[in-house]
Amino acid sequence: MAKPSVVRAAYWIETPYEPARAAEAMAGEQSTGTFIAVPGETDEVRERSAARIVSVRQSEVVRQPSLPGAATPIGHDGNYHRCEVVLEFPYANFGPSIPNLLATVAGNLYELQEFSGIRLMDLDLPDEFAAAYAGPKFGVAGTRRLAGVQDRPIIGTIVKPSVGLTIEELRAVVRGLAEAGLDFIKDDELNASPLFAPFEHKVKAVMEEIERASERTGRKTMYAFNITGEIDELKRRHDLVAESGGTCVMVSVQSIGLAGLAHLNRYSELPIHGHRNQWGMMTRCPMLGMSFTAYQKLCRLAGADHLHVNALNSKFYESNGSVIRSVQAIREPLLGGYEAMPVLSSGQSAAMVEDTYRELGTCDLLHVAGGGIMAHPDGPGAGVLSMKQAWEAAKLGVSAAAYAESHPELRRALEKFGGRQQGGK
Amino acid sequence: MAKPSVVRAAYWIETPYEPARAAEAMAGEQSTGTFIAVPGETDEVRERSAARIVSVRQSEVVRQPSLPGAATPIGHDGNYHRCEVVLEFPYANFGPSIPNLLATVAGNLYELQEFSGIRLMDLDLPDEFAAAYAGPKFGVAGTRRLAGVQDRPIIGTIVKPSVGLTIEELRAVVRGLAEAGLDFIKDDELNASPLFAPFEHKVKAVMEEIERASERTGRKTMYAFNITGEIDELKRRHDLVAESGGTCVMVSVQSIGLAGLAHLNRYSELPIHGHRNQWGMMTRCPMLGMSFTAYQKLCRLAGADHLHVNALNSKFYESNGSVIRSVQAIREPLLGGYEAMPVLSSGQSAAMVEDTYRELGTCDLLHVAGGGIMAHPDGPGAGVLSMKQAWEAAKLGVSAAAYAESHPELRRALEKFGGRQQGGK
Repeated sequence: MAKPSVVRAAYWIETPYEPARAAEAMAGEQSTGTFIAVPGETDEVRERSAARIVSVRQSEVVRQPSLPGAATPIGHDGNYHRCEVVLEFPYANFGPSIPNLLATVAGNLYELQEFSGIRLMDLDLPDEFAAAYAGPKFGVAGTRRLAGVQDRPIIGTIVKPSVGLTIEELRAVVRGLAEAGLDFIKDDELNASPLFAPFEHKVKAVMEEIERASERTGRKTMYAFNITGEIDELKRRHDLVAESGGTCVMVSVQSIGLAGLAHLNRYSELPIHGHRNQWGMMTRCPMLGMSFTAYQKLCRLAGADHLHVNALNSKFYESNGSVIRSVQAIREPLLGGYEAMPVLSSGQSAAMVEDTYRELGTCDLLHVAGGGIMAHPDGPGAGVLSMKQAWEAAKLGVSAAAYAESHPELRRALEKFGGRQQGGK
Repeated sequence: MAKPSVVRAAYWIETPYEPARAAEAMAGEQSTGTFIAVPGETDEVRERSAARIVSVRQSEVVRQPSLPGAATPIGHDGNYHRCEVVLEFPYANFGPSIPNLLATVAGNLYELQEFSGIRLMDLDLPDEFAAAYAGPKFGVAGTRRLAGVQDRPIIGTIVKPSVGLTIEELRAVVRGLAEAGLDFIKDDELNASPLFAPFEHKVKAVMEEIERASERTGRKTMYAFNITGEIDELKRRHDLVAESGGTCVMVSVQSIGLAGLAHLNRYSELPIHGHRNQWGMMTRCPMLGMSFTAYQKLCRLAGADHLHVNALNSKFYESNGSVIRSVQAIREPLLGGYEAMPVLSSGQSAAMVEDTYRELGTCDLLHVAGGGIMAHPDGPGAGVLSMKQAWEAAKLGVSAAAYAESHPELRRALEKFGGRQQGGK
């Protein structure tokens, strides 16, 4: 008989209890147990549905709890044990359902008194999930085909100011960028359908400019329209973009939920650009929430073709090491596929390219510079060129500084933005 | 001219920068600014869309950052300033859209280096949201009508074991509880549609038992079927429950997203029981995430008729003070309405009732005891009676101990569960 399928979940916990007891509380609460023995929790029920403790490995002991509200066990010695706990949950408890998987692996356990810290680090899902979730329809290859870019990252920008432009002001910005031959433009996550620039008008104006520019440049800039909204709006907005000749839609994944993303992915005909704003809430506290390693698997299953990972030397709190791990996680095949494209964004400019290529070693990236293109001293067109030149240099193995000697747009970008990576944390 | 509508958002921040500068970073990043000045951020754009700092009030200075990754400003004196910051965002930037509101008030700002702590404490929304979101269709009054309970809390239980029962085992549990005259039964959040007890079979078996018991008791137990699933499943499952004569559906709000909840609420014909599992991830770190005060407003707008708040003396980390504030927040009218029913659940039994009534001073509650009913020493029927007796005593102003002298089910419950409230934290 085949072994029943399981979901394996790895956690990082901190607990005032003996590690084994804390692991039992996790396994019990998230499967057949509760705070007290109940009739009906028979051997058959446990056999069918109890979570199993695979391993408990203590790594350190601390004297201060990371999070408030943990219990003080009778006779507590003041120690808080930090451990890696791996659990296995019977797949049959929830079936191939991300929403119900989440209630199991990332649900009430965050609130249990047994822990002064608990973080979901990784998830290992059985093949049944692959049958239930089609995943990205475009991924790296499909996005490259639509954007007409091979052999280097897709270079993009965010319309700035993030929000506040009228349709006519937006039109002028898009015209400049599309005529400069930019591969990719995206709405800011703050900008979906402002009252002074409604989505429908935006699509019409943007696509007119992109089509017009493509007649001259021979290339059609990919524009990620931020379709974030209610479930029915997603469909209407996606369909409008597709009918208007657009080639990408963007969503704030946390705003529409993974269920909203999976729903969109059932009918979508365009790459889905996944923005992870709000994610910081779930991950910035090191002893709570979820790691990106786990989260990105769920996003890819649910259908994200592109997924934001911040960027090196960004304006965000995240370390470069963490960003590098995020890119590696996305590039790792999931259930044999689910190829998605990491999106580097935040505080980017041509000055970041050299480090980025050295650290990541791949060009299968969507490299988005907002201010770094829009605020180039010689205008957005020069900003686009400076990004392309920086990637040419990186691929040739030439330093950006050396390449800049013969490439004025890159030189000017390095002059303006080059100091930023020394600042910050 | 009428003043343009705004959303007011209150935050608790911790920052290594001067508080005013940190507040400017928040306002800038979440409206018209970015890390560097860009052309196009004109006075008109700012007038239309810039967020406004209403107030910055410093409360304390600490020497250690709460969260990692904050910048070290040049010349930093080692102080981290904790402040309340109130911002106003132009409503026109996002319109009456919870998904887009979230990207603005709770988006990328959690990741900014300017902060070593940032938490959304409250939201004040303009009336336009009321026109866009119908909110709960049943609330307290409608739920009471359907459950046939006035003048005391609706008393409920969770089917335990949480997961693992076959349909026939579940049938026996439901029969016992419905025949005991229980007002309300809910699925556990772990239990939506296990492979060994699929949703469709569950609805059939449960409703047969509930209808049969109601013929004898004259009362129809409300059963909250956990319909959590993908967007299309929500509709199919809701419709099946409604067609089968069921009177409540339950969802894991974080699993389906607020957008999923609002979508369900557009067609739902039954009270929506909102379970907040996964919420701990967003709130347990005191210097990150979101307060329940803000979150519950969004849940009510999106249509939750019932909303979990943990409970007094629960098995969770949350303090009683925090639970009391949560109940008060839900009972506060929102935009003139959006009445919802607080659900007390976790570690509950008849032994918790006296404290609960004293602290909350209301019976407009759904009081759910899982183990406290199912594990009553004389069985679930006696568990139900013990809860009713405890609430009778509380309303009469008689102590539970005194009332127990003439009420054996209550006495036995106090004997078994009465010690728990002294334990824990």
